[in-house]
Amino acid sequence: MQRALSVSRMTGNSSTFPDWYQAIVREAELAEVSPTRGAMIIRPWGYGVWERIQQTLDRRIKETGHENCYFPLFIPLSFFAKEAEHVEGFAKEMAVVTHHRLKQVDGKLAPDPDARLEEPLIVRPTSETIIGDAFSRWIKSHRDLPVLINQWANVVRWEMRTRLFLRTSEFLWQEGHTAHATAEEGREETLKMLEVYREFSETVLAMPVVAGEKPENERFPGADKTYSIEAMMQDGKALQAGTSHDLGTHFAEAQNIRFQNSAGELVHCHTTSWGVSTRLIGGVIMTHGDDDGLRLPPAIAPRQVVIVPMLRDKPEDAEVLAAGEALVKVMGQVIALGEPVRALLDVKAQKSAEKRWNWVRRGAPVIIELGPRDVAGGTISFMRRDRLRDGDKVTSQSMSRADFLAGLPALLAEIQQGLYDEAKARLDANIRTDIASFDEMAAYFGAAAADDEDATAFRGWVRAPWARPTGEELEAIEQKLKALRLTLRNAPMDQPATFGPCLFTGRPGVEEILIGRAY
Amino acid sequence: MQRALSVSRMTGNSSTFPDWYQAIVREAELAEVSPTRGAMIIRPWGYGVWERIQQTLDRRIKETGHENCYFPLFIPLSFFAKEAEHVEGFAKEMAVVTHHRLKQVDGKLAPDPDARLEEPLIVRPTSETIIGDAFSRWIKSHRDLPVLINQWANVVRWEMRTRLFLRTSEFLWQEGHTAHATAEEGREETLKMLEVYREFSETVLAMPVVAGEKPENERFPGADKTYSIEAMMQDGKALQAGTSHDLGTHFAEAQNIRFQNSAGELVHCHTTSWGVSTRLIGGVIMTHGDDDGLRLPPAIAPRQVVIVPMLRDKPEDAEVLAAGEALVKVMGQVIALGEPVRALLDVKAQKSAEKRWNWVRRGAPVIIELGPRDVAGGTISFMRRDRLRDGDKVTSQSMSRADFLAGLPALLAEIQQGLYDEAKARLDANIRTDIASFDEMAAYFGAAAADDEDATAFRGWVRAPWARPTGEELEAIEQKLKALRLTLRNAPMDQPATFGPCLFTGRPGVEEILIGRAY
Ligand SMILES: [Zn+2]
Ligand SMILES: [Zn+2]
Repeated sequence: MQRALSVSRMTGNSSTFPDWYQAIVREAELAEVSPTRGAMIIRPWGYGVWERIQQTLDRRIKETGHENCYFPLFIPLSFFAKEAEHVEGFAKEMAVVTHHRLKQVDGKLAPDPDARLEEPLIVRPTSETIIGDAFSRWIKSHRDLPVLINQWANVVRWEMRTRLFLRTSEFLWQEGHTAHATAEEGREETLKMLEVYREFSETVLAMPVVAGEKPENERFPGADKTYSIEAMMQDGKALQAGTSHDLGTHFAEAQNIRFQNSAGELVHCHTTSWGVSTRLIGGVIMTHGDDDGLRLPPAIAPRQVVIVPMLRDKPEDAEVLAAGEALVKVMGQVIALGEPVRALLDVKAQKSAEKRWNWVRRGAPVIIELGPRDVAGGTISFMRRDRLRDGDKVTSQSMSRADFLAGLPALLAEIQQGLYDEAKARLDANIRTDIASFDEMAAYFGAAAADDEDATAFRGWVRAPWARPTGEELEAIEQKLKALRLTLRNAPMDQPATFGPCLFTGRPGVEEILIGRAY
Repeated sequence: MQRALSVSRMTGNSSTFPDWYQAIVREAELAEVSPTRGAMIIRPWGYGVWERIQQTLDRRIKETGHENCYFPLFIPLSFFAKEAEHVEGFAKEMAVVTHHRLKQVDGKLAPDPDARLEEPLIVRPTSETIIGDAFSRWIKSHRDLPVLINQWANVVRWEMRTRLFLRTSEFLWQEGHTAHATAEEGREETLKMLEVYREFSETVLAMPVVAGEKPENERFPGADKTYSIEAMMQDGKALQAGTSHDLGTHFAEAQNIRFQNSAGELVHCHTTSWGVSTRLIGGVIMTHGDDDGLRLPPAIAPRQVVIVPMLRDKPEDAEVLAAGEALVKVMGQVIALGEPVRALLDVKAQKSAEKRWNWVRRGAPVIIELGPRDVAGGTISFMRRDRLRDGDKVTSQSMSRADFLAGLPALLAEIQQGLYDEAKARLDANIRTDIASFDEMAAYFGAAAADDEDATAFRGWVRAPWARPTGEELEAIEQKLKALRLTLRNAPMDQPATFGPCLFTGRPGVEEILIGRAY
């Protein structure tokens, strides 16, 4: 069983996992609750992580042939009416713009009744409808296919209970949208982007995931198939970290996206969509955070090495600062993980000890404390954020400046790999494959189920064969699971050759599926 | 006088400047009108230009010490009420969100009356109010200052008459917001960012500008001073391409942004804000476009060199494609204008001649036509988009592959500089400084004034001394200018030592100001 995490080192109060999460978001200065209900303010350190995610993922999206563009924030209501008729499970929690002007009414600022829109506008919850409309204009012939586009944008889905990064009314994301000539090409694209997400998540975020297909009841409304990557958080819950949808011809039918094939017939395109969001930052926190705060994988740390100068209001301070600046410059020439090292000299007017702990909480991978003695002796004393403590004691190491610089690429790569390995071991150790009946599963999760949602009791996932029931039979299973606060996560891509009996029906299994609690 | 531009080469119809502009936006596939009234769809080539603008400007914003973050899209109405009380000229054309759910009402999708928001939310037209609110929480002591932040975001200002990139209800921009301890520091920041914009515009966009201070009547509501960079378009009109506002303590007073100074007193911060938007793309089009379409400065061209393979459905096609791919790879190793060259092999299923003209229209700086003979002979035949024609004839040049690659950095730098020089010569030649009276100015602009807004008659700007009148006297001048469709642009930063009499009042001048038509 996974040790419980505590916020004691950050806040002085031992508490629950959600409290620990909130404490990291606050103490690492990643984000804060905004005065706009349900939205968040992403602070510079948190936004810096998002910028790193954007840069590294955008490169992969472009390398697989996609181009970025930008579609309107507002979508006419009639576009959703079309979709609502066509798509079951159509979600209706959306922000609606009804007026385009304010006015002083009885001395108070209010929407101007004379500026009511004829047709309300919806703030995009996702852009299938408006992008599909463009596809229907852009695509005429098979020579126009495939169309492979992506956009980085903000989207809004009204949420009543919000949690920073994990569930907010407004969030940032990328949404890929593609159109293809054949079902096979659509399927290939869907799986290609699933694999891009898996590789990105594991390599860049150091967050191991299980890629697989969502069961029917968890599909994106209108999709033929929905795939996801699922990551295990340190409370054992699953976080759906990215999704890729094979939309078949459903959206093309609703939006009249057609092309003339080489035989001269007018046929519907096959479309896909796929996305990841700022939710990934929540995943990084809950994968890598510890009692002292955040630990950032070097690949997404806005600053990989931070120098805290030990200043004493004495003349030698100038030398320390000069040496620190020189060191930042030299590190900027070192290539680690394929890019120049991102280093910072923290010159804020603040006590050194305070600075050091701020960077520990923010999760900077390497923290150097640079004093006059280091400058004189040509040495570097540093802490590794991934191995901050030996027991309770904070540890640091010292070496010559030359050795430190020569070893820096390997050090950052080792930290990156170490964080992944730690999370991967936790994931592998906490998927139970030995549970053979629903009752046994209920007993395993039962204790935690009795607790409230803030329970710290750690439970991982169950992986079991099932007969892939559909329709009402699946709904009944969903309800039974719901009573245990469990959901079907996905059927992993790698499946064995043979299957035991279905955990739910006792019939012969046709695939294995993951079951767990989830965000 | 500037030659008139024509769309004949793009569309077959000679026409007006606005038609020419629209033709470029369409033919270069930069953007299109969206089904959402007033908004635009930025297509991949246009968005690629925006990404280049973002990357190159973001680097400058960070180098001057600013950090990016993200604030909510929606701002509570009450925040604007505060501002409306305080700020004269408060703009009220804003999109108002009043509901958070849709519902089937009489079989039609409509805003759910039960999901009406207690307080309407405004879609941000700019973020001074919500960022100021955060500043009031973040800033306690002089040690917290300065606060230097920026965000890249979409904003919405309702517009009735839209023109792609130049005036749309939704657009993309960056907005910098800073808080300082003293008036002097606020002033320095305002001018520093004005200079960043000037240098960026001239170096990266190859778009010469005049940096200066806006007259009182053109200030951002609530600003102590507003500065701008103004660029001259090929129809002689001014485009305000960026603004920087010294907000004094006005917003700090309205939003209670205070800090304890070193003497222990609680005092108001001095704040600034500054921004540029996707409007810059409109500026690039109207600065560099010609009869054949867009010409992109290499620094912002998504692809600097495009290879059009001359394919004939013959076996040697494979060799041509392989040679093209190899050439793209080699060019990616060449550093030009400080970055690896961005090259593309156009493998679309389309005739070579069609491809070539597409890239001419899109403004790719260098277009290579690669045929079997070039491959066999190790030569490169290419067109320079900046010098496409000799008279009416399209020109190309040929050289050895080795010479081409060795000369590529110099070639791209020369194209970048050449586009700037051409625009700079036009700007310098078209600012009249010899006009001594309002009547003389009216006569100069008169002919064009008689035309409708789509007039092609070219008039530049007038630069003249003025007494910097204020209040009602300034308003009267504004009205007189308006009758000629003229506006006061800015008082350039570089001013002579002495001034002639004021063009408007005859009193002694105190500075020179630019007057012209504008977008
Ligand atoms: Zn369907
Ligand atoms: Zn005031």
